[in-house]
Amino acid sequence: MTGSPKPAVCVLGTGLIGGSVLRAAAAAGYEAFGYNRSEVGAKSARMDGYDVTSEVEAVLGRAAARDALIVVGVPMPALDAVLSDVKTFAPGCVLTDVVSVKAPVAAAVQRHELSAKYVGGHPMAGTSESGWAASSPDLFKNAAWAVSVDPGVHADHFRRVAQLALDCGAVVVPVLAVEHDRAVARISHLPHVLAEALAIEGSNGGPLALCLAAGSFRDGTRVAATAPELVRAICEPNAAALLDVLDDTLEVLTQARDSLRAHGTLTELTEAGHDARVEFDDNERWQITDVRPGDHNWLTKLIDAGRSGGVISSLD
Amino acid sequence: MTGSPKPAVCVLGTGLIGGSVLRAAAAAGYEAFGYNRSEVGAKSARMDGYDVTSEVEAVLGRAAARDALIVVGVPMPALDAVLSDVKTFAPGCVLTDVVSVKAPVAAAVQRHELSAKYVGGHPMAGTSESGWAASSPDLFKNAAWAVSVDPGVHADHFRRVAQLALDCGAVVVPVLAVEHDRAVARISHLPHVLAEALAIEGSNGGPLALCLAAGSFRDGTRVAATAPELVRAICEPNAAALLDVLDDTLEVLTQARDSLRAHGTLTELTEAGHDARVEFDDNERWQITDVRPGDHNWLTKLIDAGRSGGVISSLD
Repeated sequence: MTGSPKPAVCVLGTGLIGGSVLRAAAAAGYEAFGYNRSEVGAKSARMDGYDVTSEVEAVLGRAAARDALIVVGVPMPALDAVLSDVKTFAPGCVLTDVVSVKAPVAAAVQRHELSAKYVGGHPMAGTSESGWAASSPDLFKNAAWAVSVDPGVHADHFRRVAQLALDCGAVVVPVLAVEHDRAVARISHLPHVLAEALAIEGSNGGPLALCLAAGSFRDGTRVAATAPELVRAICEPNAAALLDVLDDTLEVLTQARDSLRAHGTLTELTEAGHDARVEFDDNERWQITDVRPGDHNWLTKLIDAGRSGGVISSLD
Repeated sequence: MTGSPKPAVCVLGTGLIGGSVLRAAAAAGYEAFGYNRSEVGAKSARMDGYDVTSEVEAVLGRAAARDALIVVGVPMPALDAVLSDVKTFAPGCVLTDVVSVKAPVAAAVQRHELSAKYVGGHPMAGTSESGWAASSPDLFKNAAWAVSVDPGVHADHFRRVAQLALDCGAVVVPVLAVEHDRAVARISHLPHVLAEALAIEGSNGGPLALCLAAGSFRDGTRVAATAPELVRAICEPNAAALLDVLDDTLEVLTQARDSLRAHGTLTELTEAGHDARVEFDDNERWQITDVRPGDHNWLTKLIDAGRSGGVISSLD
């Protein structure tokens, strides 16, 4: 792919998300190469025809030489080690990540003095499977891909990260790290917690309950099939935001329980829940077309637009 | 269909579940006819070629004349009126129902002095849509269909109800009404309550959160799209069992919240939830082959078998 008009992309960590970025970037014509800590994982990717190594110094040397966009796709617990290597071997590359939580990643990037060329990212896609074998070049088609518009983000770096997201088939949601983390506590981390609780309650009903379980239980517990250590790696770094949402949720459920006990009714819960789900179904992404990265006040304008549901679907 | 070797089936209430029973029974070769309180609903069914009227006296007179199996498919709030009509116009027919909760239906049947020929039923299938338009002859394919084995159930009546379930494509789960109600509180009613709460929490995150929401939120809130009055009609009559499960769930979630707050970890929740979901995925129905309805102690044997995950997939 040398000579491609698209810049190089170096993906560090080729599990479900990183692996899917590598596949999608390659499919979009990027010079895409990657690193996986485990040689077994790297070999799986090579067997599928992808350029993946388990030699971190070599891959980062190549990234530096090719001025590649580096995409960090390792789980949160492995982040520090990877950032340390980036700082050592490719400190001049533009850097993004596809880790679930944004403020803690930004803080780690700051600790490693890599903030100048960093733009946080988070594609909102996944499955309950994990690893390279579960990755797909189509995972991000029509997905939302959060891209940081925090103070200090450089327009050129933003463009490069956003263009990768668009080339992977996603739309870009511009968002502040802290607001992203509060939002995903609600729509990604809480679903995990509730799915685990529901699975536990079903299992406590024994074989009869599991035998009678149908679609609502299956769908409601789907993400409980995710490996526990991955769920923890996603949720625990966002503890502060998740605790706020869990407090809210406990209040909503306690009120519903009390209403059912005292008055035999779930009216308030079911009406509010139905309205909320209809709002989700009716929620339409609108296109942000009047802000160009680098324009006067572009960061503030994109923050406002993202906050009210706007997305970027083209940078032209 | 006159002259069919299969007996007649009369479905009272042709919404999603009753309508699907009517379609499936007709497809299986039964003389299947039905009643819907609203003439608009009855007409929709007739337009699709089904034999449905809004004249309750006429349909029950026909049921009595044809010795039809009567299937009550109305929501819980409409149950008393329909049972009153059955008592008046067709008291000699074998009677079953496809209402979600079993002990309250059995109590209503008792009040109307229809217990002698009653066998409760509950097919575990549905969608978030409702009404005749959403009904399908394939809704029950491979579904579990709970059939009552409470004291007093007559073997011939059990066979007739179980055979209808099998002919609709389901497998039969023999169960006591009270144990059924406890089980569905866990695997059907709790999923509704959690879906409503999750939808509310997502919506409270505003357009940004809804814009970022992906598969886990979509799946976790799917059943919140169900009409609130239907969710109430399903859950509220099972308040006692649902309250027990809600208390348990609040305890599980509170412990998870406290663990996250005090120790920054969700280890216990995620491991128990994952184990539970794996147990659900691995749970295999086993065939009950050694109990024939009417044999010595057949009710007790079927209760035990159903309790440990056994199903009936043939009555031959």
